[in-house]
Amino acid sequence: MKGKLTLVGAGPGDPELISVKGAKVLGTADVVLYDALTHPDLLDYVKSNAEVIFVGKRAGKHAMLQEEINELIVAKALSGKHVVRLKGGDPFVFAHGKEELEYAETFGITTAAVLGISSINLPGFYGIPLTRRGINESFWVVTATNKNGMLSPDVQLAAQSNATCVFLMGMNKLKEISKIYLNIGKGKTPAAIISRGSLEDGQIIFGSAANIYAKQSIKKLDTPAMIVIGASVGTHEYFYEKMKNLSFFNAKTNNQRKNE
Amino acid sequence: MKGKLTLVGAGPGDPELISVKGAKVLGTADVVLYDALTHPDLLDYVKSNAEVIFVGKRAGKHAMLQEEINELIVAKALSGKHVVRLKGGDPFVFAHGKEELEYAETFGITTAAVLGISSINLPGFYGIPLTRRGINESFWVVTATNKNGMLSPDVQLAAQSNATCVFLMGMNKLKEISKIYLNIGKGKTPAAIISRGSLEDGQIIFGSAANIYAKQSIKKLDTPAMIVIGASVGTHEYFYEKMKNLSFFNAKTNNQRKNE
Repeated sequence: MKGKLTLVGAGPGDPELISVKGAKVLGTADVVLYDALTHPDLLDYVKSNAEVIFVGKRAGKHAMLQEEINELIVAKALSGKHVVRLKGGDPFVFAHGKEELEYAETFGITTAAVLGISSINLPGFYGIPLTRRGINESFWVVTATNKNGMLSPDVQLAAQSNATCVFLMGMNKLKEISKIYLNIGKGKTPAAIISRGSLEDGQIIFGSAANIYAKQSIKKLDTPAMIVIGASVGTHEYFYEKMKNLSFFNAKTNNQRKNE
Repeated sequence: MKGKLTLVGAGPGDPELISVKGAKVLGTADVVLYDALTHPDLLDYVKSNAEVIFVGKRAGKHAMLQEEINELIVAKALSGKHVVRLKGGDPFVFAHGKEELEYAETFGITTAAVLGISSINLPGFYGIPLTRRGINESFWVVTATNKNGMLSPDVQLAAQSNATCVFLMGMNKLKEISKIYLNIGKGKTPAAIISRGSLEDGQIIFGSAANIYAKQSIKKLDTPAMIVIGASVGTHEYFYEKMKNLSFFNAKTNNQRKNE
């Protein structure tokens, strides 16, 4: 008997954001492989006699290599077990999901996948719509750090577009990203950083493409964090309040001038 | 008492892809407003004495205007009720979610939102990862039809980028989109159309940016449908099979040549 592999998207943080189907599938697993981005409460759905294996990074310890994870999945499935690979967010957005499925399939293992809410949807939860009628017609999601550890060239293109840009894996590249926007004259574009989104200790900071690096240097938000830059970010209440304050200050200045 | 509004993302089609939190919130609603893109089985989560109102398009009948939906939400909430607005996909991806929240908030109504799996994640379900290590570093999501019914200028930019492009509301613009790729010499880019994704009658067709319009003219897939074009689409098994067949034909031709 060749067992089975099911990839399950755990959602973006809050354990209740897993899908109903994902929770059900967890309950049928014989083996669950999970990583650092999946909430521990999700393991409540797992049968008490199931084997639960952590395959993520932990302080001071290296993460399991992708190849080691692939091998572990195959070994467990070939022993006839239903292996569930629980992955933060959605399995197919910057998550090697397709690679894990393909590797298992070469061994004749049956595979399935349950989609998850991607972390790219987190801005909406914090009052930043990825799209807003009349403001933007697209959004562009970029992994800022490519597989060689360099800034992805797509960041430069994305910054020039009218899309609202979502940068993942970008916290170590934040200064470079700010500079790109500054250099093309778009330093004032509204920006935000969302840290540990949808979790109880989730945080968000606002600013502009130009000053968001300085703000993060002070606030030091935790990872995982994402950067959002674009016109639709500017529809958040934060920016309306700023504008109100500015017009208040301007009005005051004008009145003072009259009195002089 | 001022009631409450909660937006809930219904997910991309399959009713089991709603989040656990979304299903729970539906069970607490006094009034549920739903539209054509939400699966009828989701109403099973609703209390039997709750009021359920359809606000979408139906054959031969106009949809309720966004302004009418806003008014209805406010009227129901101001009578002290918990209104749940159930929206296909995620409430903040091409879905006016932020507008509905803001309108209600101007009346002092408490608001909340539960994220949903966006339809933009559907390609993963069909074996097309939006991102694939070593293949692409970004994806760009564009509403092909803008609010004036025209092709969004972002389509032209997106086609030129290295991003995998997801076009929503694009089926009436498919010929134009194909032409854009052809005109910039990218007609061979792998492409797919996903119709009624994650539902039992869901369908997918594959081709190239150049020929996908012709294929759709024959297959006539139903809406809602999305178009995906980009290098990561080419990692689907469909294209590997094509390549194998091609090399088989080429090998045959070479052998025949030798025999001549």
